[in-house]
Amino acid sequence: MPEPTRRGPYAKGVERRRQILEEALAAYAESDSSGPSLRSIAARVGLSERGLLHYFPARDELLVAILAERDAADRATFDPDGPLDDLSAVTAHSAETPGLVRLFLEMSAAAPDPEHAAHGFFTRRYRELRELVARKFRRSAPESSEVDAEFAARILIAASDGLQAQWLLDPSIDLADDLGRLAKILASAPRRRT
Amino acid sequence: MPEPTRRGPYAKGVERRRQILEEALAAYAESDSSGPSLRSIAARVGLSERGLLHYFPARDELLVAILAERDAADRATFDPDGPLDDLSAVTAHSAETPGLVRLFLEMSAAAPDPEHAAHGFFTRRYRELRELVARKFRRSAPESSEVDAEFAARILIAASDGLQAQWLLDPSIDLADDLGRLAKILASAPRRRT
Repeated sequence: MPEPTRRGPYAKGVERRRQILEEALAAYAESDSSGPSLRSIAARVGLSERGLLHYFPARDELLVAILAERDAADRATFDPDGPLDDLSAVTAHSAETPGLVRLFLEMSAAAPDPEHAAHGFFTRRYRELRELVARKFRRSAPESSEVDAEFAARILIAASDGLQAQWLLDPSIDLADDLGRLAKILASAPRRRT
Repeated sequence: MPEPTRRGPYAKGVERRRQILEEALAAYAESDSSGPSLRSIAARVGLSERGLLHYFPARDELLVAILAERDAADRATFDPDGPLDDLSAVTAHSAETPGLVRLFLEMSAAAPDPEHAAHGFFTRRYRELRELVARKFRRSAPESSEVDAEFAARILIAASDGLQAQWLLDPSIDLADDLGRLAKILASAPRRRT
């Protein structure tokens, strides 16, 4: 998507897209794991499904933009220099919207295709999230070596994603508690000797 | 799918399905992350795509049966009383077939739908795998409490699934090494005090 300028019809399009994404997140928050239809998202902003898709290059671009919008909302509540526990809170929060957990899994399955809208998004997301979590880990476990922080970041992100998949089928899993315990165990594990 | 009896036309159907699933796994093993087409799997057993789907109630049933066949093959190399390291080996092996890693993610996104072929499969799979891994964990870390073994099983399975999703986009991730380290850290973590 080319970067639009901030005035005239472009600015209107930007504003409209923002409104659509906000309403999409609200629709997911009210939905069960099957998620809202594009049609019902469109209705919230007074558009037909066709009209809705006019604002995005393709259906998959809209779906990826919804995931990006959730990330942006999560990041606003996420202090990169705050405690590692924030991670569990973000995971617990995303588990309130099982439709988005499913959308995330679907899109991550599509991501390896370089032509798919999810490719750039997931590649960047994992890289940035690993850096962010590694930084938090270094602060909360300063005695750990740098290698450990990168390892810990990969594992914490993987465990968060994988636990959400298990939780979709077994809601008795306490995501925040499991991730909080894992973070503590990793932070207090001995330094790698290599 | 009703359980077929072991004789007559049913037995032939059973044998044919087994052959199809074996060839499907071979086709995935030769494919990149985009996976083989149903048509190319069909061609390996001398069938059209339509002829192939004749042996399964629906396309999704075939796809889930392919994942079940991989699990069965992995389980044959997996001693429930063997060392926890076997887990890393299984994950490293499944990472040789990125097409199956993507299929797994796709189907796990579909699994929460009770009407979908993946629902029963994933529900059982997670439950059985957690029991299996917890049992291995108890043997390799006998001083850990029972609660810890179940926690460790959830985390190890989640990390294996989640790391595979990261690895699809960054093949430099060493799945076996990461999981092996995680298993050691969990096994040597102090007992939970609650």
